[in-house]
Order: sequence, then structure tokens, then C-alpha cells
Amino acid sequence: MTDLRYPIGPFAYDGRMTDARRAECVARIAAAPGQLRTVVAGLDDAQLDTPYRPGGWTVKQVVHHVPDSHMNAYSRFKLALTEDEPTIKTYDEAAWAELADSRRVPIEVSLDLLDALHMRWVALLRSMDAADFNRGLRHPEHGRVLTLKQMLGLYSWHGRHHVAHINSLRKREGW
Amino acid sequence: MTDLRYPIGPFAYDGRMTDARRAECVARIAAAPGQLRTVVAGLDDAQLDTPYRPGGWTVKQVVHHVPDSHMNAYSRFKLALTEDEPTIKTYDEAAWAELADSRRVPIEVSLDLLDALHMRWVALLRSMDAADFNRGLRHPEHGRVLTLKQMLGLYSWHGRHHVAHINSLRKREGW
Amino acid sequence: MTDLRYPIGPFAYDGRMTDARRAECVARIAAAPGQLRTVVAGLDDAQLDTPYRPGGWTVKQVVHHVPDSHMNAYSRFKLALTEDEPTIKTYDEAAWAELADSRRVPIEVSLDLLDALHMRWVALLRSMDAADFNRGLRHPEHGRVLTLKQMLGLYSWHGRHHVAHINSLRKREGW
Amino acid sequence: MTDLRYPIGPFAYDGRMTDARRAECVARIAAAPGQLRTVVAGLDDAQLDTPYRPGGWTVKQVVHHVPDSHMNAYSRFKLALTEDEPTIKTYDEAAWAELADSRRVPIEVSLDLLDALHMRWVALLRSMDAADFNRGLRHPEHGRVLTLKQMLGLYSWHGRHHVAHINSLRKREGW
Repeated sequence: MTDLRYPIGPFAYDGRMTDARRAECVARIAAAPGQLRTVVAGLDDAQLDTPYRPGGWTVKQVVHHVPDSHMNAYSRFKLALTEDEPTIKTYDEAAWAELADSRRVPIEVSLDLLDALHMRWVALLRSMDAADFNRGLRHPEHGRVLTLKQMLGLYSWHGRHHVAHINSLRKREGW
Repeated sequence: MTDLRYPIGPFAYDGRMTDARRAECVARIAAAPGQLRTVVAGLDDAQLDTPYRPGGWTVKQVVHHVPDSHMNAYSRFKLALTEDEPTIKTYDEAAWAELADSRRVPIEVSLDLLDALHMRWVALLRSMDAADFNRGLRHPEHGRVLTLKQMLGLYSWHGRHHVAHINSLRKREGW
Repeated sequence: MTDLRYPIGPFAYDGRMTDARRAECVARIAAAPGQLRTVVAGLDDAQLDTPYRPGGWTVKQVVHHVPDSHMNAYSRFKLALTEDEPTIKTYDEAAWAELADSRRVPIEVSLDLLDALHMRWVALLRSMDAADFNRGLRHPEHGRVLTLKQMLGLYSWHGRHHVAHINSLRKREGW
Repeated sequence: MTDLRYPIGPFAYDGRMTDARRAECVARIAAAPGQLRTVVAGLDDAQLDTPYRPGGWTVKQVVHHVPDSHMNAYSRFKLALTEDEPTIKTYDEAAWAELADSRRVPIEVSLDLLDALHMRWVALLRSMDAADFNRGLRHPEHGRVLTLKQMLGLYSWHGRHHVAHINSLRKREGW
């Protein structure tokens, strides 16, 4: 039985980040905005208001969540590049998804936001060398350091993860 | 041997356009901007300036051509809906692809243009009933009438056709 | 008494188009998308559905009209640059403004469309020399030739003309 | 003598935030993306690479800075709405402006980013009542609490502040 929360499996980081693997991760981040736009193409309002799984976010909330998450990720890359192991500020993604803008704004706005954001993020990622990817962030609670290499792996998974949520719903519903 | 000009085959119209087929065509037009954005994601300037086949347009010219073509198609739908079998104005797509804007403008601009254009076009297509799809356009040279049903089929193929050009190049080049 | 249809006066072409005047016209076309975005900023749905003058288009119809008109204008520039005094196809702007896409699509989509379209148009205009601006289009009914110089003047006025419609409404209403 | 760093004066908060003042501040935030797009319209690459004042950021850096700053501001509003006086993470805006994405990415990308971001931000601001605007953020160093009312005032000034930098340069240079 499949866990509907993890259609492509949970994120796993195996510790190796070769040049080829890094290029592949950047390519996946570059491809994510187009894939998100494609997977929601043609959905009507009722379909956008359908939870991607029982008890889960609606498709619309998923779409608005992705740029929320990636704006934070992009900021964290810039923090790590300009400060020495800065301690980040976490955010409550469940509470953010209930705020009014996630309910009222057409998804097209968040698709546009993601397009533009990833253009800047990918330009930044491409400018980074191996030493830059070894820079780190500190988590405010457990204090563990997360390197930008790990962040890169995480976010190359994150976009596909949410695209797969919507794709899986469309298949189950025959949309 | 494959004809690199027609990676998904040339357009063929079999004369039948059921409701289900029509919905599928509209869905394909809705999906095209995301697919084009995905297929060019991560290409650098040298890759964008590579012809998709020997003697063919560069990837960049292909990307700029799609909104040129679809702006004309969208206008033709509106002409056919507001006039009685209007005679359209053709354009020289090869000459347009050599104009300065196709060379100087970043592809991101044409991806944005296509996103917004298809939002309006798909809203128009969804508002149309069977009688609207039977309305026609007249070609200026041979005088043949093309119905909007046929135009719908043609343009549901056209986006995928150009996405496949770039996809096929990426596969051959290992990009 | 002011004629609400012409808040900046009707278009007038005085026959002179110096280099400085041409540069100013191109700058006005470049500025139009930002001005349109600014003049509608913060309007709510009821305000967008208000006619800009008694019996006139609603603000929303005005916003959707501008890219309809400018897509046609941009195409006409390209036709005149690639063919010898081509006869253009006119369109019924009043009927187009009543089509479903002008009623159903959020204005944000047309603002995005205009941004991207003007980027390509301005790149084209900047690549043109004096000889290019002397090329012409033929009107289908009266057969008169309109040069691209005249078209440039006309469209440097057209964007401001519609921005002024909305600005004048906001002033009268105290919005 | 004018201080070129503060063309509209430094930000001042007088402590009063009536309903009318709040609506005006939201309207200014809504208008900022169009004003930024207008004030850079038609600038060429050499002009974009000109510092807005001797020793200051280039026009391009100013344009990229605005969405950097406003993404952080928008996140801070959402933090304050979903947590109890959260301590924010500051960032080094001067160091961010030197990162590669601020140098390599076309300004059009940041203009698009700002359009989409402000659509979401303004929807959020409009959903907020007086109690929401009294919620606060804590600064990590001096521990002072900043209310969202103060943040609203600050950011209604911030966009115009940077637009005025560019406008002032254009006037001095006669562009």
C-alpha cells in the first residue's frame, strides 16, 4: 500500500554529492516551475479546492505552499553564503497555508512567483563552487548544521514531491 | 529513420471531434506553457543557440516562435467568433523568426508571454459551445474554410510538436 | 467641458518624426505596462466592473483590451517588416471586448501579457532604423498606406490614452 | 543640498495609524511594482549598470534588492500572524546585493517576482483587521518589538524610496 503523503518516497540524503549529482539537482530545481504549471493545467475551481489526499491540503494550498517554501529556502542559501553558519528562523508551514492569501489569490500568481524566483535561485546555484556548497546553516532547536549541499538535495526533491501529490490525485480521479 | 522535423508526426485531422476529444485538446493547450518551460529549464546560452536539427531553428528561435504563432491563432479564434467566415492574414513565420526580437530577447519573456496568452485562450475555448467550434476562417489564397474545431486540433498538436523538437535535441545531445 | 472618451485628447500626427521624437515614442511604449499596472493597483472587483465613463467599457474590459490591441499592433509591425506593404486584417474591438475571456480572466493575466509583449515589441522597435520606420501597411477598406512611423506615434498615444481613462475615473470617484 | 540617499526623506513613523492611513499604505504597496516597472522602462544595459548615486548601488542592484527585501518583509508578516512575537532573522542586504544572482539575472525577472509577490502580500494585508496589525515581531539584537502597523508604514515608504532613487538619477542624467 502506498503512503499518499510520499508519492515519490520521503527525502533521503546519502551523503555523496558529486559534480554530476549537483548538476542534476540544479536541473531539477530549474525544471520544477514548468512541471508545477503543467500538472495543474486545466483544473477548474472545484478541482483546485480538492484535497490531494483525505485530510491533506487542497491542490490550491499545495501550489501556494511551494513558493512560500522556496522563498524561505532561497533566503537561507543567501544567509549561508553571506554569514558564518547563521541560525535560521523556522516557520509554521501548516499555519501559513491557512492564511488568507493562500485562499484568495489565484494560483497563476504563485506559478508566476515560482518562475521568477527559480530564475534567481538557479542563477545563484550556478555561480556557487564546491566550497560554497559546504557552507552551512544552523537549526534553531537542535543546533545541527545543515550544509547547502544537503539543502540542494532536499529542494531538488521538494518540488517533485509536491508535483507528484497533484499528479497522483489526477490519476486517482481520472482528471 | 526518423524525420527530425516531425518528432511526434505531422498533424493529422480525422474529421471527428467528440466532446471528450475537444476537452482533451483544450487540456493539451492548457498544458503547453508548462511543458515548454520544463523542456528548456537549465539550458545555457550556448545550448539555446543550438539548432534543434541541422539547418533548423535554434532552441531560442523555437521558443520565441511559439507565442508568435499562438498570438496569431488566438486572434484568429476571436476573428472567427466575431465575424462571418473572415479571411485571415497569413504571416511569414520563417522571416519573423529572423527579426531582431527573436534574437535579442531572453526566452523567459516568451515563456511568460505564453503563460498569460494561454490563460486567456483557454478561458475563451472553455466558453465555446459546439456551434462556436463549427464557425470558420477562410484562407486568403486557396479560399478553403478551416473550422475552429480543426484549428483546435491543430494547436493542440502544435505546442507538443515544438516541445518535442527540443526534447529530441536534449536526448541526442545528452543534455 | 471635457470629453471623457479622450482624457489626453485624440491622437494627432503632425508628420514629423525626428530621432528624438522616435526615441520618446519608444520610451512611452516601454513605460506603458508599468503605468497600466500602477493605475489599477488596489482596485477591488466592484471597482474593476465599473465603466470608466457612462456607457463605456468597464475598467476590466479596458485592461484586457490593451494587450488585444497591442498584440495586433506588434503583429502588424512584423508584417510590415517582412512583406511589401501588406494589407492588414482589421478586427472588431467592441465585439472582442464582449468575448468570454475579457469577462472571466483576472486582470493580472493581461498585465503579465502586456509586460512580456512590450519587452519583445520594444526590442524590435530599437532594432529598427529610419528606413524600417518608413515601411508601410495598407488598410483593407480605403487602401491608404500607414507607415510604421505613424503606427509608432499612434501606439505611444494609445497606452497613455487608456491609462488616462482609468486615472480619470479614479479621480472622479475619489478611489 | 539634497541627500541623494533619501530622495523622499528617511522613513518616519508618527505613531498614528488610522483606517484611512492604513488603506493608503496598502494602496502604496499595491502600486509599487507598476511604479518600479515604469521607472526603469527603456533603460539600456549601460544605464542599468550606473550607480544611482556616487558610491551607491547600480540601478540593477536596486531593482533586485526590492524583491529581496519585500520577500523578507512578507515572510515577517506571516511569522507575526502565526507565532507570538517571533524573533526575526535579519539579513545583510549589502552582502546580498553583491551575490551572483543580483549581477547575472535580467531585471525583468525581479519585476515579475515583485508583481506576483505583491499580489499575495496585498491579499494578506487586506484580510487583516486592526488586532492583526497590532501583532509584533522582535528584533534579535535590541529586542525591541515592531508592530505590523509600523512594518506597514515602513514598507509603504520603502518601494517609493527606491523608485525615487532611480527617478532622481534619470532626471540628473536627462535619461
